[in-house]
Amino acid sequence: MRVLLASRNAKKLAELRRIVAAEQLDGIEIIGLDEVPDFPEAPETGATFEDNAVAKAVDAAAATGLPSIADDSGIAVDALNGMPGVLSARWSGKHGDDQANLDLVLNQLGDTPDERRGAAFVCALALVVPGAEPVVLRGEWRGTLLRAQHGTNGFGYDPIFVPEGETRTSAELSPAEKDADSHRGRAIRLLVPHLRALG
Amino acid sequence: MRVLLASRNAKKLAELRRIVAAEQLDGIEIIGLDEVPDFPEAPETGATFEDNAVAKAVDAAAATGLPSIADDSGIAVDALNGMPGVLSARWSGKHGDDQANLDLVLNQLGDTPDERRGAAFVCALALVVPGAEPVVLRGEWRGTLLRAQHGTNGFGYDPIFVPEGETRTSAELSPAEKDADSHRGRAIRLLVPHLRALG
Repeated sequence: MRVLLASRNAKKLAELRRIVAAEQLDGIEIIGLDEVPDFPEAPETGATFEDNAVAKAVDAAAATGLPSIADDSGIAVDALNGMPGVLSARWSGKHGDDQANLDLVLNQLGDTPDERRGAAFVCALALVVPGAEPVVLRGEWRGTLLRAQHGTNGFGYDPIFVPEGETRTSAELSPAEKDADSHRGRAIRLLVPHLRALG
Repeated sequence: MRVLLASRNAKKLAELRRIVAAEQLDGIEIIGLDEVPDFPEAPETGATFEDNAVAKAVDAAAATGLPSIADDSGIAVDALNGMPGVLSARWSGKHGDDQANLDLVLNQLGDTPDERRGAAFVCALALVVPGAEPVVLRGEWRGTLLRAQHGTNGFGYDPIFVPEGETRTSAELSPAEKDADSHRGRAIRLLVPHLRALG
């Protein structure tokens, strides 16, 4: 069965496919928005990750008739009262400019002492099967923010985020190490039983 | 009696002097940090407006022996979970660049619908008299944020802030109108009885 991930982000698509493969969900083929012609994309204006994920998955299921997964994720920085949050991808005002977004958080936290540099990566995942109620799941990954970036794996705020129990940033972890612990890995694993029920 | 306002901001100094004059606190002369040679300035690293105001006033009173007032103020934007908050003056990463800070908030709120554009200006004021416990006061001024700037009075985020009950931004109000309602005006009026007790 084809399941649509309502995203054009190749890294998110690869991440979901890796986990689906590892879970031996052999009946499930994950496709991305690039394989859906003329998909009408709506802006993300929700106040929460969950609102955005559900809205995207509902739109995708309505447009395609396919079971559709959408995620919204970002980083919640304690010293910024949980922001950038839903604005993580456009925190600097430039949508998708990872370096500008990361630099702005580093500058905003400039004077913040180590004990107040906590943060969490958060991922909300929604699965919408046409005709059924949305399933919404949430994964969190706690850590602390460095004062400079390290590592080149991952994306977004990975180069400044050191997960709890780690000494490396999440941009220094291998993809497999990241999948095992990350917010998105946690949320996707919560999704697995729901995908298995489709297959 | 000389009372030190622990600030180099000429507009804040003028604002406090106007209100002191209006309240006929004739025994009180407000001086600013520019009149205090070699004042050791510490970075503002507190988690709250109150923490920063008290820290500044304590430093000022210790350095000069004068009754010392310090303020910390900023804007708390609902859709940013109360940020920029204590980072209002350096939200863009550039300390004191009002235009960059305001532009960043406008960009961050770009997609945010009208009903979620609420905000409050907040001012914490501390008065530290050598040998006495600090007095800490707080004024708030609720309003909503526009999508573009209007007006040239005031400073900081004034050009995008429309106070409750107003149709103009706080940068379109006269200084007297602003004093009458503003967060800083409210906090300073709460301070007046404490200043009167000194004089």
